[in-house]
Amino acid sequence: MYLKYLDEKLPVKETGTTTVGLVCKDGVVVAAEKKSTLGYLVASKESEKIFPIDDRIAMTIAGVSGDAQTLVRYMRAELKLFEVENKRKISVKGAATLLANILQSNKIFPYYVQLIVAGFDDSGPAIFSLDAIGGLEEEKKFFSTGSGSPIALGVLEDGYKPEISVEEGARLAIRAIKAAIERDIGSGGKAIDVAKITKEGISIERHEL
Amino acid sequence: MYLKYLDEKLPVKETGTTTVGLVCKDGVVVAAEKKSTLGYLVASKESEKIFPIDDRIAMTIAGVSGDAQTLVRYMRAELKLFEVENKRKISVKGAATLLANILQSNKIFPYYVQLIVAGFDDSGPAIFSLDAIGGLEEEKKFFSTGSGSPIALGVLEDGYKPEISVEEGARLAIRAIKAAIERDIGSGGKAIDVAKITKEGISIERHEL
Amino acid sequence: MYLKYLDEKLPVKETGTTTVGLVCKDGVVVAAEKKSTLGYLVASKESEKIFPIDDRIAMTIAGVSGDAQTLVRYMRAELKLFEVENKRKISVKGAATLLANILQSNKIFPYYVQLIVAGFDDSGPAIFSLDAIGGLEEEKKFFSTGSGSPIALGVLEDGYKPEISVEEGARLAIRAIKAAIERDIGSGGKAIDVAKITKEGISIERHEL
Amino acid sequence: MYLKYLDEKLPVKETGTTTVGLVCKDGVVVAAEKKSTLGYLVASKESEKIFPIDDRIAMTIAGVSGDAQTLVRYMRAELKLFEVENKRKISVKGAATLLANILQSNKIFPYYVQLIVAGFDDSGPAIFSLDAIGGLEEEKKFFSTGSGSPIALGVLEDGYKPEISVEEGARLAIRAIKAAIERDIGSGGKAIDVAKITKEGISIERHEL
Amino acid sequence: MYLKYLDEKLPVKETGTTTVGLVCKDGVVVAAEKKSTLGYLVASKESEKIFPIDDRIAMTIAGVSGDAQTLVRYMRAELKLFEVENKRKISVKGAATLLANILQSNKIFPYYVQLIVAGFDDSGPAIFSLDAIGGLEEEKKFFSTGSGSPIALGVLEDGYKPEISVEEGARLAIRAIKAAIERDIGSGGKAIDVAKITKEGISIERHEL
Amino acid sequence: MYLKYLDEKLPVKETGTTTVGLVCKDGVVVAAEKKSTLGYLVASKESEKIFPIDDRIAMTIAGVSGDAQTLVRYMRAELKLFEVENKRKISVKGAATLLANILQSNKIFPYYVQLIVAGFDDSGPAIFSLDAIGGLEEEKKFFSTGSGSPIALGVLEDGYKPEISVEEGARLAIRAIKAAIERDIGSGGKAIDVAKITKEGISIERHEL
Amino acid sequence: MYLKYLDEKLPVKETGTTTVGLVCKDGVVVAAEKKSTLGYLVASKESEKIFPIDDRIAMTIAGVSGDAQTLVRYMRAELKLFEVENKRKISVKGAATLLANILQSNKIFPYYVQLIVAGFDDSGPAIFSLDAIGGLEEEKKFFSTGSGSPIALGVLEDGYKPEISVEEGARLAIRAIKAAIERDIGSGGKAIDVAKITKEGISIERHEL
Repeated sequence: MYLKYLDEKLPVKETGTTTVGLVCKDGVVVAAEKKSTLGYLVASKESEKIFPIDDRIAMTIAGVSGDAQTLVRYMRAELKLFEVENKRKISVKGAATLLANILQSNKIFPYYVQLIVAGFDDSGPAIFSLDAIGGLEEEKKFFSTGSGSPIALGVLEDGYKPEISVEEGARLAIRAIKAAIERDIGSGGKAIDVAKITKEGISIERHEL
Repeated sequence: MYLKYLDEKLPVKETGTTTVGLVCKDGVVVAAEKKSTLGYLVASKESEKIFPIDDRIAMTIAGVSGDAQTLVRYMRAELKLFEVENKRKISVKGAATLLANILQSNKIFPYYVQLIVAGFDDSGPAIFSLDAIGGLEEEKKFFSTGSGSPIALGVLEDGYKPEISVEEGARLAIRAIKAAIERDIGSGGKAIDVAKITKEGISIERHEL
Repeated sequence: MYLKYLDEKLPVKETGTTTVGLVCKDGVVVAAEKKSTLGYLVASKESEKIFPIDDRIAMTIAGVSGDAQTLVRYMRAELKLFEVENKRKISVKGAATLLANILQSNKIFPYYVQLIVAGFDDSGPAIFSLDAIGGLEEEKKFFSTGSGSPIALGVLEDGYKPEISVEEGARLAIRAIKAAIERDIGSGGKAIDVAKITKEGISIERHEL
Repeated sequence: MYLKYLDEKLPVKETGTTTVGLVCKDGVVVAAEKKSTLGYLVASKESEKIFPIDDRIAMTIAGVSGDAQTLVRYMRAELKLFEVENKRKISVKGAATLLANILQSNKIFPYYVQLIVAGFDDSGPAIFSLDAIGGLEEEKKFFSTGSGSPIALGVLEDGYKPEISVEEGARLAIRAIKAAIERDIGSGGKAIDVAKITKEGISIERHEL
Repeated sequence: MYLKYLDEKLPVKETGTTTVGLVCKDGVVVAAEKKSTLGYLVASKESEKIFPIDDRIAMTIAGVSGDAQTLVRYMRAELKLFEVENKRKISVKGAATLLANILQSNKIFPYYVQLIVAGFDDSGPAIFSLDAIGGLEEEKKFFSTGSGSPIALGVLEDGYKPEISVEEGARLAIRAIKAAIERDIGSGGKAIDVAKITKEGISIERHEL
Repeated sequence: MYLKYLDEKLPVKETGTTTVGLVCKDGVVVAAEKKSTLGYLVASKESEKIFPIDDRIAMTIAGVSGDAQTLVRYMRAELKLFEVENKRKISVKGAATLLANILQSNKIFPYYVQLIVAGFDDSGPAIFSLDAIGGLEEEKKFFSTGSGSPIALGVLEDGYKPEISVEEGARLAIRAIKAAIERDIGSGGKAIDVAKITKEGISIERHEL
Repeated sequence: MYLKYLDEKLPVKETGTTTVGLVCKDGVVVAAEKKSTLGYLVASKESEKIFPIDDRIAMTIAGVSGDAQTLVRYMRAELKLFEVENKRKISVKGAATLLANILQSNKIFPYYVQLIVAGFDDSGPAIFSLDAIGGLEEEKKFFSTGSGSPIALGVLEDGYKPEISVEEGARLAIRAIKAAIERDIGSGGKAIDVAKITKEGISIERHEL
C-alpha cells in the first residue's frame, strides 16, 4: 500500500540521484550530486546526500528523502550508543550489518532507499552497499546507487584501477557523476559533494559544476 | 486505503494551494492564497494557510485541511512543552526536525500534506520544506508547495536575488502567487496572506486582490 | 491501446520539453529548449523542436518525437501543395486549422503531441495552440507546452505586457525557458532556440546556456 | 495487444543489446556485442547486430530480432530500388528518413526496435538514431541503443572528444561496449563487432573478448 | 486475444517439447521427444515433431500443434513451387528466410511456434532457429527449442565439440533430450526421434526409451 | 503485497543465481556462481552464496539477498544456541527442519528464497532443499536452485553417477555451473565457489573462470 | 493474496501428484507416485507423499509441499499429545476432524493442500478426504487427490468392488496411479509407494516402475 501511495498520490521528495563509492588504497571516496525531485518537479538543487554517521564512517542515500533521513538519524543515535556501551568505535562492517538489520526488520513497510556505508577502521578502508530490505554486499572495488547509477558504473568499470589513491579516486568519482548528470534526468544540481575518508577522518568538499 | 477514500468517497476539504517561502537578508517571508476545495467545489475563499506556531516560527500548509490543521495543533502544543521543559525557545531547525519525526512515524497512514516551516532564531532566518513522510530540506533561497507551486517557482526562479530584503521579498511572493492563481485551478480566493518574520516577530498582512 | 504502449513498453523518444510562444506587436516569438528523453535517460541534448513549415510560419513540438516529426513533414508537404493549388500562401489560421483537422481525423490512434503554430500573415502576428486530438485555440498573449510549461507560464504571467516588441519578447521567452529548465526534469539541454517571426520571415537563433 | 504478447506469451528472441555509434572526423564507427535472449535464456552468443544496407551505410539493431531483421531486408531492397530509379546512391539522411517513414506508418502494430543508421556520403560522416515509431534524431557526437546503453553512454560521455579519428573511435566504442557487457545482464557474447565506415566503404571487424 | 484463448479457454494441443539441432562436420542432427499436452493432460505420447520438407531439409516444431503443422504444410508446398519455378532446390538459408517472412507477415495473429530448420545443401550443413514472429538466427553449433530446452542446452553446452560427427552428434542429442525428459514436465513420451541429414538425404530413426 | 513491491518498485538485489549440491560417497559438494542483479543491472560480480553455518553444515542461497542473508544470520545464531543447550552438534536434517519451520512460520510475508542445506554428520553426507515456505526434501543425488538451475540440472542428470567421489563431484558441479553461466542471463561473475564438506569439515575453494 | 504468490512469484515446490485411497474389507490402502514440481521443472523424483501419523493412521498429501509437511508435523505432535492426555489412541475420524479444524482455522491464509486421512481403528477401516479449508468427507469406497486424480478415478470407478481385499486393493491402486502417470504431466517419478493399513499396523512398500 504504502509504496503505491508514494508514486501515485503522496507529495514525497525523492532523490533520483547518483551516488558512487570507491575503495582506494589509502581510504574510501564517496560522492553524490545534489538534486532532489517531487514527481517531475525539481524539489531541490542543494540536497545533502552524504552524511557522516561517525568519525570515520559516512552514509550516502538514494530514494525517498524522508525514509533515508530517518535512517541517518537512527544510525547516528545507534553508533553513539554503541560507543558508550562498548567503549570503542564500531567497525564499518558492524555499522553496515546494524543498518541491514534495521532495514530487514521493516521489510513489511520497507524504507524506500538504496544506501552506501563507507568508512575506514582498523581493517582499513571498506565499502558496503545495502538495498531496501537489507541486502548487504561488501564492495571490493566500487558501487553506485540511484537512477543515474548505470551511467556512473560505465565510467567506473572503464576507469577504475586497483590501488587507486584517494585523490585519483575523487577525480574518477567526479567524472562518473558528471556523466550521470549529463544523461539521467533524475540527477543534477549545481555541485557535486565528494567525501574522502581516510584514517585522518572525513573531509567533504564541494565541487562546483 | 485512506488516501483512496480521500479522492473517491470522503467529502474532504483540500487546499489545492499555492504557498511560497523566501529567505531574505533580514528575515523570511511566507505567503499563501486563500482558496480551499471540496472535490470540484470551492469550499472556501477565506482559508487560513499560514499558522504561527511560536513567536518567530510559522508553518504554511497544503494538502488535506484536516490533516494539516491537526499538525498545527500538535506543533503548537509541542513547542510550548519544549519551552517549559528546556527553559528556552526551540530553533527553527529543531521545530522542523520535530515535525519531520511526527510525519515519518505516521508513514503507514500518512498525513496528506506539504509543509513549510519558516522562522527567525539566533542563527538568523531559516526555511525548511517537509513532504508527507518527513522528507526535510533546508531551503537556502525559496520554496513553494501545492498545486500551483510550479507556476510560482517560475516567477521565483526568474525574480529571486540573494540579499533580497523582506519588503522586496514580500512583493516578489505576491507576484509569484498571483501568477499561480492565474494558471492553477486549485489556487485562488479573494486575497493573499503574507507573513514577514524578522527578529521582531511575525506580522501577517492581507493583500486584497 | 497505442498510448499505453508509449508509456509502458515501446522504446520511444519524447520531448519532455518546454516551448513557449508570444504574440508581440511586430511579430511572434517561439522558443524551446533542446533536451529529449527516453524514459529516465537523456536521449539527446540537441533536439530540434522549432520547425519552419512555410516562409513565415513555424511549428513547435512537444510529446513523442516520431509523431511530431511526421506532422511537420505532412504540414510542409501540405502547405507547398496549398500554395501550388491556390497560388497564394496559406494564412496562419488556415495552417493551424489544417493541422487540427489532421489531428482530429487520427483521434482513434492519436498523435501524442502538443503543438504551437505561430506565424505572421496579412492579418499580422498570430499564435495557435493545438492539443493531441486537434483542440485549437488562438492565443492572444502567450502559450507554453510540455512538461515545463507551468513554470514557464509563471514567468510569462508575471512578465508579459501587451505591445511587447519581438526583441523584448525573445528575452522574456528565454527567461521563461531558463526557469523551466531549472525546475523541470524533462527540460534541459545545452542551448535555447529562439525564433523571431516578423513580416521579414523567420530567423532562428541559438542561445547558449 | 501485440506488444503484450511479446512479453507474456510468445517465445520471441530479443537483442537486449548494447550498440554504439560515433561520429569521427574521417568516418563513423558503429559497434555491438553479440548476445540475444529469449526470456531469461541466452538464445545466441553469435547474433549479428550490424547490417550493411548499402556500400557506405549500415544499420544497427536492438529489440525484437524478427522485427529488426525484417526492417533490414526492407531497407536493402528499398535502397537498391532507389539507386535504380534515381541513378544515384541515397544519402545517409535520406535512408534514415525512409526508415522513419516505414516505422511511423506501422505505429499501430509497431516494430519493437531501436535503430542506428550510420554512413558516409557526399556530406561526410553522419549518424541517425531512430526509435520504434520513427522518432529521428541526427547525432552529432555519439549514440547508444539497447538495455546496456546507459552504461555505454557513461563511457562515451566521459571519453568522447570532437575530431576523434575512426581508429580512436573504434577503441572507445569497444571500451563502451565492454563496460556494458560487465554490468548489463542483456548484453554479452563472445565478441564485439566493430564497423568502420569511411569514404572507402564499410569494414567490419570482430574483436574477441 | 487469440493467445489468451490458448491458455484459458481453447482446448488446444501443445508440444511442451524438447527439440535439439546440432551442426556436425558431415551433416546435421535434429532430435525430439514425442509427448504433446492439452493443458495438464498428456494428449499424445507419439507426436511427430520432425518433418522433412525437402530431400535434405527438415523442420522441428515446438508450440501449438495446429499452428506448427500448418507451417509444415505451407513450407512443403512452397518448396515444391520453388523447385518448379527455379529448376533447382532451395538452399537451407533460403528455406529459413522464406519461413521467417511467413512468420513475420502474420505477427498480428502470430503462429505460436518455435522452429528449427536444418539441412544440407551445396554450402554444407546448416541450422537455423526461428521464433514466433520470424526472428532468424543461423546456429553455428547447436540449438534447442521448447519447454525442456534449458535442460537440453545444459547437456549440449557441456558436451558439444566442434567437428563432431553425425554419429556422435546423434548420441549427444539423445543424451540432451533424455535429461530434458527427466526434468521437464512438458517433455516425455515413449521414444526419441533422431534425424540425420547428410548429403545422402534425411534418415529418421526411432530411439526407444 | 510485499512480493509485488520486490518486482515493481523496491530497489532490491537478487541472486538470479545457479547453485548446485551433490551427494558424494565421502561427503557433499555445493557450488555457486557469484553474480547478483538489481533489475537488469549487474549489482555484483563477487557475491557470496555459500555460507558455512556450522563446522560441517553449509547453506547456499538464491533469491532476494536481504532475505537470504537474514536467514543465514538466524541459522548461525540458532545452531550455536542448539549446541550450548544440547551439548552436541545438530544433525543436517535437524538444521534443515529448523530452517523449514522458520520459513513456514513466515509464509504470510515469506522470505523470497530457495535454499540448499548440505552437510556431513554421524549419518554421513546429506543434502536438503528448501523452498520459500519451507517445503523440505532430502535429495539423494543432487539438486540445483536459481534461474540457471534447469541448465545445471541438464548437466547433472547427464553426468551424475552414484558413488561419485567428492573430487569428481566438484568437477561435475563446476561443469554444471559453467553451462548455466553460458545460457542464463541471471548467472555469471568472475569465479565459481566450490565447497567440499567431508567429515574433516568444510573447505571452500574459488575456481576462477 | 497468499495463493496468488504461489502461482506467480514464489519458488515453491508442489506435488502435482496422484494419490489414491481405497476402503477394503480388511483394511485400507493408500498409494502415491513420487514426483514433485517447481513450475515446469521436476523438482524431485523421490518425494514422500504418504506419512504415517500414528500406529494405524496415515496421511497422503497433495499440493504445496511446505504446507503439507507442516501439517504432518502438527498432526504427529497432536496425536501424541492426545494419547498422553486421553490414555487412548484417537480414532481415524477423530484425527480427520482435528485436521479439518486446523485447516478451517487457517482459512484466511489457507494451507494449499488436498489430503487423505486413512486408517484402521475399533470401528474398522476408514478413509476421509479433506480439502484446503477443512471440507471433510468420509469415503466409503475410494478417493483420489491431485492433478492426476481424474485419471485415477477412472480406473477406480471401473475396477473397484465392495469387499475387495487389501491385496487386490493394492494392485488396483497401482493400476490407477500408473494410468495417471501416463496421462498427467504433474504425476510421475521412478516408483509408486503403497501403504497397507490393517489392524496389524501400517506397511509401506515401494513399487518400482
